[in-house]
Amino acid sequence: MTFDPAKIMQSAPGAYTTIGGREYLYFVGTGYLGLHGHPEILRATCEATMKYGMGSATSRRAFGNTPPMVDVEARAAEFFGMDDAFYFMSGYLGNSVVVQAIGGTFDVVLIDESSHYSVRDAAVLSQKPMFTFGNRDPDSLAAVLKEQCTDGRRPLVITDGVFPVRGALAPVREYYEILKAYPGSALSVDDAHALGAVGPLGRGSLDQAGLPWETVNTNVQPKDGPRLFLAGTLSKAFGGFGGIVPGSADFIAHIHDDSPYFRAANPVSPGVAAGCARALELVRDHPEMLTRLHANVKLVRDGLRGLGIEVDDVPVPIVCVVLDTVERMQRVQAELMEQGILIAYNPKYSDLGPKGGIRIAVFATHTEQMIQRLIDGVAKVLAS
Amino acid sequence: MTFDPAKIMQSAPGAYTTIGGREYLYFVGTGYLGLHGHPEILRATCEATMKYGMGSATSRRAFGNTPPMVDVEARAAEFFGMDDAFYFMSGYLGNSVVVQAIGGTFDVVLIDESSHYSVRDAAVLSQKPMFTFGNRDPDSLAAVLKEQCTDGRRPLVITDGVFPVRGALAPVREYYEILKAYPGSALSVDDAHALGAVGPLGRGSLDQAGLPWETVNTNVQPKDGPRLFLAGTLSKAFGGFGGIVPGSADFIAHIHDDSPYFRAANPVSPGVAAGCARALELVRDHPEMLTRLHANVKLVRDGLRGLGIEVDDVPVPIVCVVLDTVERMQRVQAELMEQGILIAYNPKYSDLGPKGGIRIAVFATHTEQMIQRLIDGVAKVLAS
Repeated sequence: MTFDPAKIMQSAPGAYTTIGGREYLYFVGTGYLGLHGHPEILRATCEATMKYGMGSATSRRAFGNTPPMVDVEARAAEFFGMDDAFYFMSGYLGNSVVVQAIGGTFDVVLIDESSHYSVRDAAVLSQKPMFTFGNRDPDSLAAVLKEQCTDGRRPLVITDGVFPVRGALAPVREYYEILKAYPGSALSVDDAHALGAVGPLGRGSLDQAGLPWETVNTNVQPKDGPRLFLAGTLSKAFGGFGGIVPGSADFIAHIHDDSPYFRAANPVSPGVAAGCARALELVRDHPEMLTRLHANVKLVRDGLRGLGIEVDDVPVPIVCVVLDTVERMQRVQAELMEQGILIAYNPKYSDLGPKGGIRIAVFATHTEQMIQRLIDGVAKVLAS
Repeated sequence: MTFDPAKIMQSAPGAYTTIGGREYLYFVGTGYLGLHGHPEILRATCEATMKYGMGSATSRRAFGNTPPMVDVEARAAEFFGMDDAFYFMSGYLGNSVVVQAIGGTFDVVLIDESSHYSVRDAAVLSQKPMFTFGNRDPDSLAAVLKEQCTDGRRPLVITDGVFPVRGALAPVREYYEILKAYPGSALSVDDAHALGAVGPLGRGSLDQAGLPWETVNTNVQPKDGPRLFLAGTLSKAFGGFGGIVPGSADFIAHIHDDSPYFRAANPVSPGVAAGCARALELVRDHPEMLTRLHANVKLVRDGLRGLGIEVDDVPVPIVCVVLDTVERMQRVQAELMEQGILIAYNPKYSDLGPKGGIRIAVFATHTEQMIQRLIDGVAKVLAS
């Protein structure tokens, strides 16, 4: 089909991105560490593509374990401080990977009403009774649990760790405390927007909340306290493509046994896997990227607050701004675009009010000057 | 995890493939046209990777429409003789793409009991009542339809077009005739193993069966006769990576509206998309590849028959051999491997009997001499 030529992306996404023939100062999307065009990642991808071809054309259970596939999983395991990892075709499928691995160890699925489509799909695929609770609302979760799990039914709670447009963190610590009253319970987060970007080490929302990291993606079988799980992607902060679930040796062995994505699907192209492996090494070797991202997030939030705009105080590289009218938000977006600065206005998203909201994505590769240009741009529109 | 070093693939898959440090004459996997290591495809992938980076880091609804993404869909539309196409993260998701596009226009899902996991997942995701019918059994389908759809409920039948290990074709013409008695019915095939490889033009199992191609992936809304749908992949015969669903402009517009894979997921890396676009051009420009594949399939089947082995007479590049004992099949596999020839023995698969079966994958790039070496190798083991 003919897509709007003004929306065709013609470069790697980064602090500057060429779209529709124009180079924009770019605050959109999910490339939080600014790695999608990193020359070392691209070189690793091309080298492995020339060596291993476009794909193994056979599943991981057969001969699909090319060296880049083995390598990317080893690098991911190292990054998350776990035994092993499973790398697969799309972060979209991450929640399903977790559900496949722990299937049979829960009786009811409860999901945040504003969860990503992929959370909903995973819940449906589990073929267990599914219920929703209010967006980021521990009281609502407690009420639904009380209603659905009084007879010893074991709940699996799934939520986005970071909500993709609102940029809010799920109150996972509160959920964890509530779930302590339910033996055999489990809490799983879709940390697509958090891995590599959120938490002191970039390990995502569970670590940011101080939950016991050493238990994450370990216990497949029910135990006394709530089990913790996460799924994520290498397509966003890490600058690659494909989904990732790190875990204990036992947990990953369950995935190998139970996930059709391992047993009966073509793995990601070896070149892309090699690029992702190199990206994980870069993030490991350059912790200053994450430090810089967190500093930039603070700069953007403080800068907007300085203009009298209310923004959440969360260490997340998605800054959501809701102004008094739709027209005003559309004008900010349009006039910044004219100035060569790209931000997004989302007219609707499940966890936004009826007016929608502006979404500003912060990257580690934005400089202080770039951020100042953004803030000045917003100030100029608001003053006019 | 530590995978068996003897099973690590260290080259692109092709007629000769290096696995565990040894180069084998290779009759395994799904690279039916032998394109996964084609230099022009790899070059196109690397060029686009350097130009557009690892990914757009934003969905197709936003700025994810990079030039390679637009290009691969135009090339796929051209190949299938349709208006447009949707290219997505994995052929595994193809059946779900179809179900998302036509959701709400059927009331019951009936799937072949031996369908691929991905068919089952799509059926579950539809959240409609699901029933199974006997493997490739029109009478069984008729009986289940009679039982479940007498009250005007509209059935969607989903089946593998080609079964991945048995290499059998689904009797889609018989299904189509049966479905004529059910207004609003639909038949959808997972043609992962057929696209590019089966049918006079490589358009898959529906075209092979002579069903009306001009109606495939067109009518989203129910009509009098059965609607026809297909989903497939560029990861197998086409030598690339990612799923493909071609269709009419209207059908693809429904996908853009209704599929979360379009609206809320990262598209495949632009480099891989560019490689796939080049692959589609190669297949278009070199119809002799398909002719050669079909001739090779006949050579392998005739050669095995010459040894007194019973094989199905189907124009499919998957040749399944079931010998009298498991031990004999294991011995054929193991002794051929010693001779440097790789075929697969599958101890179990849903549509095979309790003994499992040998699976031989035929490629367009196998020469007559290579095929003779295979046949001679099998003869030698059987005679010993």
